Amino acid sequence: MKVLIVYAHHEPKSFNGAMKDLAVSTLKEQKHEVKVSDLYAMKFKALADKDDFVKISNPDYLQYVLELKNAVDHDLFIEDTKQEQEKLRWADFIIFQYPLWWFSVPAVLKGWFDRVLATGFAWDFGNMYDKGLLASKKSMLSVTTGGPENIYSLNAPHGWDINQVLYPVNHGVLFFCGIQPIPPFVAFAVFQVGDEKRKQYLEEYKQRLLTIETTKPIKYHSLSDFDENMHLKT
Amino acid sequence: MKVLIVYAHHEPKSFNGAMKDLAVSTLKEQKHEVKVSDLYAMKFKALADKDDFVKISNPDYLQYVLELKNAVDHDLFIEDTKQEQEKLRWADFIIFQYPLWWFSVPAVLKGWFDRVLATGFAWDFGNMYDKGLLASKKSMLSVTTGGPENIYSLNAPHGWDINQVLYPVNHGVLFFCGIQPIPPFVAFAVFQVGDEKRKQYLEEYKQRLLTIETTKPIKYHSLSDFDENMHLKT
Repeated sequence: MKVLIVYAHHEPKSFNGAMKDLAVSTLKEQKHEVKVSDLYAMKFKALADKDDFVKISNPDYLQYVLELKNAVDHDLFIEDTKQEQEKLRWADFIIFQYPLWWFSVPAVLKGWFDRVLATGFAWDFGNMYDKGLLASKKSMLSVTTGGPENIYSLNAPHGWDINQVLYPVNHGVLFFCGIQPIPPFVAFAVFQVGDEKRKQYLEEYKQRLLTIETTKPIKYHSLSDFDENMHLKT
Repeated sequence: MKVLIVYAHHEPKSFNGAMKDLAVSTLKEQKHEVKVSDLYAMKFKALADKDDFVKISNPDYLQYVLELKNAVDHDLFIEDTKQEQEKLRWADFIIFQYPLWWFSVPAVLKGWFDRVLATGFAWDFGNMYDKGLLASKKSMLSVTTGGPENIYSLNAPHGWDINQVLYPVNHGVLFFCGIQPIPPFVAFAVFQVGDEKRKQYLEEYKQRLLTIETTKPIKYHSLSDFDENMHLKT
């Protein structure tokens, strides 16, 4: 497979960095092709604004979503957006490696979603979910948390389990574009667990990486499961 | 009250801009004091990294969360962080005005969460949720969406209702710091609904603004509702 790793951590020596390095070496050993988008090293521009375009269609009234589509249609993206979209086109499988911050992705990765997953490139009106424009691809979230697993539950302080916490990205971002996420790999409480457990996480992650090609995606609904009022057919 | 409006939209003439302006004028008429953090106008730095600190405690291994706490303890934040924290200290009530992008906040607002809500300032180990360090304050999300209300439901394509979509911010970010959110104001499908409906949204929003001081916060659990294993007491 062709695998793109989108990596969002500020410290190369971090556990996130170790997971990214492990993914690169393990996947290459398996004869996959690998590319990495190291968003911090790239100082990837997070703010979505008019400077993302060589030219905009309506300078007097910036509608970002419409300008994204216009830029797709007329090749008006700045260079970094183009390169990220080119990598996405190339990839069969995308791994997102990041620390869970505020129940979401770090801002730089949110900026990557906002800027790169353009209308007309990743999705379009009528081309969402299983009809999304990146529908042949798969993905996996590889995430670290500060908190331990037991506080991620309906009956614990966070109130949600980790799959609910990751649903906005897995379903709302990736599957919205047609990309099919396989179950995430989560290393909980990486600060607190100690070296032994961290080594075990890396072992487990390596095993997971060996099977990503054959792991079944999370089951989500197809648009054809809904009637014309967008209500689930019974 | 002292009200801070944190506003994240790239186009001053947008509906988000109109909602922000309406909030400023309505709240001032009500004799509230109002400050606005216009994150796009400020070109607020979204990327959380070492440049957020005048000096860091460990240049060889950047642990962002620990540096946040160190910066609180030793007054080491750069100027924009300090100003935002000062506004938060000042405010009794915070309104977040933004368009829902990818089931979350625009990257620039995520960066504001990542950088401003520092350990030791907004929360701390043992000081989370109702024990959060900003526990005397209230908030409201004021959000626009692209999609219509009917696709935000368990049995519709998005799979979640709007309160679930906003839970990671309301509960995971704001209430985590002790801030008590009141129910959000949501203007659905602002592109599609036409001028009449948009005027109606503004009317409804104005009425909402007149009552924010007396509106009861969303009911969430206190930490005292959980036992020593962080499990909900029965």
